[in-house]
Parts: sequence; structure tokens; C-alpha cells
Amino acid sequence: MAAAPSISLSIFLFLSLHFTSSFSKIPLPFHSSLLLRPQTPPIDPLLPYQTGFFTQILDHFNFNPQSYQYFQQRYLINDTYWGGAAHNSPIFVYTGNEGNIEWFAQNTGFLLQSAPRFRALVVFIEHRFYGKSIPFGGDEDVANSNSSTLGCLSSTQALADYATLITDLKKNLSAVDSPVLVFGGSYGGMLAAWFRLKYPHIATGALASSAPILQFENITSPYAFSNIVTQDFKSESQNCYRVIKESWHLIDITSTHPQGPQLLRKSFKFCKEAEAESIKNWLSTAILYTAMTDYPTPSNFLNPLPAYPVKQMCKAIDDSRTGNDTFAKLYGAANVYYNYTGTATCFDLDDDSDPHDLGDWTWQACTEMILPTGGNTKESIFPASTWHFADRLHFCKTFFDVEPRRIWIPTHFGGHNIERVLKRFGSNIIFFNGLRDPWSGGGVLKNISSTIIAIVAKEGAHHVDLRFSSAEDPKWLKDVRQQELSIIEDWLSQYYLDLAQY
Amino acid sequence: MAAAPSISLSIFLFLSLHFTSSFSKIPLPFHSSLLLRPQTPPIDPLLPYQTGFFTQILDHFNFNPQSYQYFQQRYLINDTYWGGAAHNSPIFVYTGNEGNIEWFAQNTGFLLQSAPRFRALVVFIEHRFYGKSIPFGGDEDVANSNSSTLGCLSSTQALADYATLITDLKKNLSAVDSPVLVFGGSYGGMLAAWFRLKYPHIATGALASSAPILQFENITSPYAFSNIVTQDFKSESQNCYRVIKESWHLIDITSTHPQGPQLLRKSFKFCKEAEAESIKNWLSTAILYTAMTDYPTPSNFLNPLPAYPVKQMCKAIDDSRTGNDTFAKLYGAANVYYNYTGTATCFDLDDDSDPHDLGDWTWQACTEMILPTGGNTKESIFPASTWHFADRLHFCKTFFDVEPRRIWIPTHFGGHNIERVLKRFGSNIIFFNGLRDPWSGGGVLKNISSTIIAIVAKEGAHHVDLRFSSAEDPKWLKDVRQQELSIIEDWLSQYYLDLAQY
Repeated sequence: MAAAPSISLSIFLFLSLHFTSSFSKIPLPFHSSLLLRPQTPPIDPLLPYQTGFFTQILDHFNFNPQSYQYFQQRYLINDTYWGGAAHNSPIFVYTGNEGNIEWFAQNTGFLLQSAPRFRALVVFIEHRFYGKSIPFGGDEDVANSNSSTLGCLSSTQALADYATLITDLKKNLSAVDSPVLVFGGSYGGMLAAWFRLKYPHIATGALASSAPILQFENITSPYAFSNIVTQDFKSESQNCYRVIKESWHLIDITSTHPQGPQLLRKSFKFCKEAEAESIKNWLSTAILYTAMTDYPTPSNFLNPLPAYPVKQMCKAIDDSRTGNDTFAKLYGAANVYYNYTGTATCFDLDDDSDPHDLGDWTWQACTEMILPTGGNTKESIFPASTWHFADRLHFCKTFFDVEPRRIWIPTHFGGHNIERVLKRFGSNIIFFNGLRDPWSGGGVLKNISSTIIAIVAKEGAHHVDLRFSSAEDPKWLKDVRQQELSIIEDWLSQYYLDLAQY
Repeated sequence: MAAAPSISLSIFLFLSLHFTSSFSKIPLPFHSSLLLRPQTPPIDPLLPYQTGFFTQILDHFNFNPQSYQYFQQRYLINDTYWGGAAHNSPIFVYTGNEGNIEWFAQNTGFLLQSAPRFRALVVFIEHRFYGKSIPFGGDEDVANSNSSTLGCLSSTQALADYATLITDLKKNLSAVDSPVLVFGGSYGGMLAAWFRLKYPHIATGALASSAPILQFENITSPYAFSNIVTQDFKSESQNCYRVIKESWHLIDITSTHPQGPQLLRKSFKFCKEAEAESIKNWLSTAILYTAMTDYPTPSNFLNPLPAYPVKQMCKAIDDSRTGNDTFAKLYGAANVYYNYTGTATCFDLDDDSDPHDLGDWTWQACTEMILPTGGNTKESIFPASTWHFADRLHFCKTFFDVEPRRIWIPTHFGGHNIERVLKRFGSNIIFFNGLRDPWSGGGVLKNISSTIIAIVAKEGAHHVDLRFSSAEDPKWLKDVRQQELSIIEDWLSQYYLDLAQY
């Protein structure tokens, strides 16, 4: 039995920069009654896609000799349900985010499960610098070696990749009149929304799930994120919130005692003794990601989790059998997140393995993705703290020798007064948010126009709507998906009417 | 008396890549009855602007160390009529094109002349790599030295410059809620339209005058441009068209005769003998630019011109006093364009002076601005020819060692099926086109929606609406401007209603 990795996401946590995606245990097959033509044998039952590679240019916005370097961008494609170019049948594209695209495809069943209804082609495109879409000959060591090679890892380059790849794919399929709809969750949802806004000639509509496009400085409070986590735990039990809140001080105090580190190691079953700071990061990570993925069914995000994991954590904390033993309670809670399968014998806080290849997000957070979420009020479940741009700046200068462009994203993509701006501009975007998701604080929570729609589920967590459906899904989740499908149907009907006319 | 420069635009002509702007001789002052507050003494009566410089980043879309080089971007500003930040009074911005911004400011009176009505601040921003907005320490020799330094001269970088500068300017003026309207002519008009589409959070509306955003491959025919020039001359006189059309062959034949080159030199008053190809380029340039700037009042574009210069050219050709002497007729026509002031004693075809700093357009035409306009049908006033991308490719590889990105502009900005795409996306754009302007073939000539409007003047030439008004302006031109102002007024009224609500 192996030591459970801590996933060591503390860097993301305290920079508050990281998004993550869901992983559903509910695999294929789909409801066979919906199939329009026989399904070709899947390559992998969990990943029924063909893999393609597209020759992508390194820098779309510069014309210097370096920009003309090319790399292979990976995409996954499933044409099982596609009605074909002759019928101008739609193309559903997932705008990949910060990780291996196979991981997102496995975690995002909505496209493939909706494909039969619309006879859609399904494509998942991998984001540059992640997974197998590595510039510089596919050599990750070279691509990640310094700020010169990492320079062209950015959201705008990624969007231009998608525009270029989709345009070429449609041409190759002789499907130039097929409408394209883009889908994405988290950062991928931001990309989907921005893609519809910047490339309306390529995407007819976007479903942006849990896309915190407003989580930027002077638009959304840096305390919003932590406030929602706090509320998630408070809503389960005030005692649960109180025990966690008081634990930070207790860990600090304990670790200064001569026998403290050993006590902490034994209480939490660490493989070896750990600093107070590490322990707090480790616990915070568990709390934060559990809140984000507080799904109504069992899931596997970075770690396997039971249904309603926040409730399970609080159950462990509120368990009367542990009496007043705070560390035993916290261990029980952490165990929900780090050891739901029960296979870990001890926890290794130094393990920095990165199975989903998320590492380059730190670069993005050090250049343009300045999402201030690290503020914790006195009431926060986390230790009180203030978000300072200077901290980010210092980290990024030290780590990459790069200076973050503090207001670039709102300058390039907007965000301020979004209602005023988009009320009379743009169309066909769905913003889904679940209010238990801490990222919902930076989401679009109100309808902006008749075609820029906010769907808000008070019980929902991080892009829960995009996960594979399950028989155990609660009614509200089924209703959300039905509403999304119905809106998509309207967009497509309108598109085909327009196509006949223009 | 000096030799008249030929302006040596043949490279642009035969690549068919160049835009130009109008220059009106009608200067300030404005109608004083419209003034809302006293006009401060103008710095220069022809150029009543303060000059500012903004520290601009070299590459907005890359984060490598090179991208963090900064340069000084010039802008011109006039606050004479501005109602101020306290009233959220509007800001009119000219999105500079391929040349010295002072030249565009002198040639574009519409903003300043409309400013009193709207109490608008007027800003002209210079395009990177032109005028005084030169990266690499302002050293043109360095900036233009090779494809590495020229790499970041592109339309997308220019738009991001405008977004960054405007955002900063509004912040400095404490005018974040002042609506911004963008204006531009020709390539500047393309930038204005694209700016509204890509940065709706920064610009509330755009007036895109003579902006051939559809003059791209597989959208608009490469013959459209030359067909309009042909029609311009035919509409004056069939004989005029016929004489010009037959002249190309005559020049070729003549130049092969032993005494031919001398005869040509004398006939056209060239300072020295010239090749047939040079002579044809020189004549074509005159014909093309005269058609483009066939304004109803005297103007000064690259050269001074009388009112209705195409009519004047044809008058010279149809002049019975020159009998059957084709070269005398052509000389008369060329004289309208090259020597309207009558100061030239001979024409120097080798003169490649570039008073308006247009040179770097060749780079843009070799990277992304692939506007196919060089096709001439058998009926064309120019020698029949076909447009081949391969010719452009060959030229650009030879000249810059750079490969044009053939479909980048339509991929990034759209253009295909524009009606279908923008009918339900976007708002607040006026596309003005004059049908005598050869670039109108690639313009938007039909209303797309209730707020994306095409204004078409059959008598109009290249962005005539943006020129300073004159007492001699014909009624149709006054009507065009009134229509534009009335639409702008509607946009602003709507904006202020929205501002009160959101």
C-alpha cells in the first residue's frame, strides 16, 4: 500500500491561482435509444475518441522568425453521432484548459452525451503547453526551461490556436457551414466565453461553466472565494466551521512544543514530521478542493471523493466518538479528501507529483492570470489574510523572473460593467455557476440579455453540469442540463434559419 | 523649380497593398457658433493638438523577455470642446493607420468638427512603427532592420496598443465612464471596426470609413478593385477609358524602338529615360490614386488635386487640341495628378521619397494584410492580369524572408458570411463607403442589423466623409455626415441611459 501523495498544490492555494476539473466515475455507454447510427467500437471505453495532431504555429501575433516555429497540437475527436457535413450538422468543441486533454475528456461527459440529440461531432482540443501539445519539438524540458520558451503560453495564443485548428478542421471536413459550439469548464469556461466574444465568426455559441471571468482586481473582491468556502462548511454545521477555524492556531502552537511535531505526525499519519506551514497548506488544500467539488454523486477529481464530500468532512469533525480531540477530527476530515479509498498508510507532504500536468498554470498565473482570491476575512474558515499584488509580483520575479501584467486580462477581455457592455453586444453565451463553488464569486450570475444567460444552481459545485450524467443525479442538476440543452437547441434552430437566408 | 517625385508607389500598386488617406486643404477654425466654451489658442492652426507619449509594451501577446521592451507611442489630443469627466463626456478616438499621425489628423476633420456637438475629447493615436511611434528606442533603422524587429508590427498588436492606451488615458482623466467612440478611414477604418468587435468594453461604437474588411481571398474578387477604377473612368467618358486602355501596349511597343525611350522621355517630361515598366507603374499609380481620391472639392492627398480629378484627367485625354497624340493626352492626364500646382519641370521616376512614412506597410502586406486586388479583367482599364498568392509569397520571401500568413486575417477577424455572423452579434458600427472608391468593393455595403449600418454614397470616394467639411461640399456629402452624426447621437443617448441603469 502506497503513501498518498499530498498533490502539493500549496503553491496554487496560496497564490490562489489554480482551477481544477471534475472527474466522473460514470463512464460510457450512452442511452442506446438515442443513437442515430451504429457506434464504432470505442478505442478505450473510458475515452472513445480518435486522436489527431494539428500543426500549429508558435506565435500568432508576431511575425519574427521565432514565431514561425511549429508544434503538434493534440485533439480528440468522436464522430459516432455526427450527422455529417452534408447536413451541416454541428460541431461541439471543448476548449481545453490547463491539463492533459484526455483528463478533461474523461471528466466532461456533457458534449458526448448530448451529441446524439444534435447529431454533433465532438472535439476536445488540448491547450498549448499541456498534455502532449508541447512546443519546441514536444520536449517539455525545453518548453518549460525559461521565460523565453514559456513566453507564448497565454490565453490569447490558446484562443488563436482554437480558431486556427477549428477553421482548418472544418475545411478538411468540407463542413464550413456546420455551426460550432464551444464548451468549457473553469479556465476552459473562460476560454469558451472569450472565444465566442472574440471569434463569433467561428463559434455560434458558448457554454461557459464555472468560468470566473470576473474574478479580477477591482471587479470581484479577493475575499469572495474564501467567503464561499466558509459558507459551504458553515451550512453543514457551525461546529464543523468552528473546529476547522480554530485548528490553524492549534497547529502553530503544537508545532512549537518539543513533542509537537511528533504528535502532529502521529495524529495525521504523516510519513514523516512536517512543518506547521506545510500541514496547514495540506489541510487548506483538502478543504478548498472539497468545497469546489462538492458534487452530489461520488466523483474523482484529483482524488476520489464520496457524494457530498463537505457533508462527509463535517460528519467526521462532528463525530462524537472523537470527543474533544481536534486533531483526530481534522484527520478524519482530511481522510475524506486524501484517502477515501482507504489505501494510504501514511501521507507524504513532500510528494509533488503532478499526474494531470497542471504545472504550467503557475506561469500563466505569473503573467496574465492575476485572479485575486487569497483574501481571508476574520470570519473566514482559513487564517485571516490580505491579498497583495506585491506578493504575487515577488513570487513571480523570484520564480520565473517575469513581471505579471496586472490589468491585461480585463483590458483585453473586459469584465468591468459587464452588464452594460454586453447588454447590447454579443449573444449566445450560457454562464453556468453553482453557488457552492468558491469560483462562483467571480462568475456571471445574472442574465445580461435575452441570449447571454446566467444559470445558477444554489446546490451546484465547480462545473458540475458538464460531468457525465448519472442515475443518481438530483433533479436540480437534470433540470440545469435540460435548460442548457434547450437553449443550445434554440441557438442551432436560429442558426439554420439564418443559414437558409444568408 | 524642383523635379516632381513620382512617389514611387509602384511596389504598392503592383502588390496592390496600399491604402492612403485624404488630405483636405480646408483647415480650422470651426463654426464658432457651435463652440461650447472658448477655444484655447491652437498650437498650430492646422494641427490644434497637444502631443502626448504613452509608454507602450512591445508585444502584448508574448511574455518572453523581449516582449517587455517598451517604446513611446505618440498621440495627439484636443480637449477644447470636452465636457469633462464629471459629465462623462465622450472621447472620440482616431485609430491611426499606416503613416504619421499628424498627417491623418490634418486629413480627418470630422472628429474635431463634430466634437462641439457632443462636447467630445478628441484623440488621434499613432500606429506602432509609423511616425514617431517607433519601438527600439525610436530608432527607425533598428526597428526596420529585419524580420525580428519588425515582427511585432501587426494589426492585433496595434489594436492592443489602442486598448491599453485608452484604458490608461481614461484612468488618468478619471473618466472611466466616458464613452469612447472610435473612428478610422481605410486601414484605420478596418482597425476601428475590428476594435469595436474585439474591444466592446472599451469602444461603445465605431465609424469605419472606407474599410475594406471584406477585401480578402475567397470573400471578395481580386478583380473588384480594378473594375471600380475602370468604371470610374468609363463613367466620365468611354473615349477616356479607351485611350488609357490602349496606352499600355503603345508604351511597350514604343520603348522597343531605337528612338522610343527618348520619345517617351520627351512626351512625358521625364527627367531621364525610363523603362516601359516604370512608366506604366507611374501612370497606373496616377490613375488608381486619382480614382481613390475623386473628391468633390480640391484636395491634397499625396499630391494636390483639383475637385473631381477623374473628370479633369478625362478632360485632358478627351481634349481635341491633342488630336491623335496619345502620349500628349496621357501626359495631360498624368499632369493632373503629378503636377496640379504646375511647379514641376520634369518627373523623376526614381524618386522614392516617402513623406508620410508609409514604408512599413509593405511589411504588413507581407505578413497578414493579404488583400488580393491585383486582378485585371480583359475589360480593365489596366493591362489584364491575374492575382496569384504565389507572386506575393515570392516577393515577401525575397524582400523580407518572411512567409505571409495567407488566411490569418479572416481567421482572426472574420469576414466570411459577415451578415450571418454579425446579424445576431455585435452592435454600433457604421460602415461608410463611396462607390467611386475602388476599395468599396471590399467594404460592407448593406445594413447588417439595426445597429450595424452601411452608409453608401454612389458619388463618394475614399473616406470622403471624414475629411474637413467645406462650404463647397455637395448635398449628398453633407447628408452622409448628418446621418453619421445622428446615429452617433443615438448610440450616446443609449449609452447614457444604460449608464444610469447599470
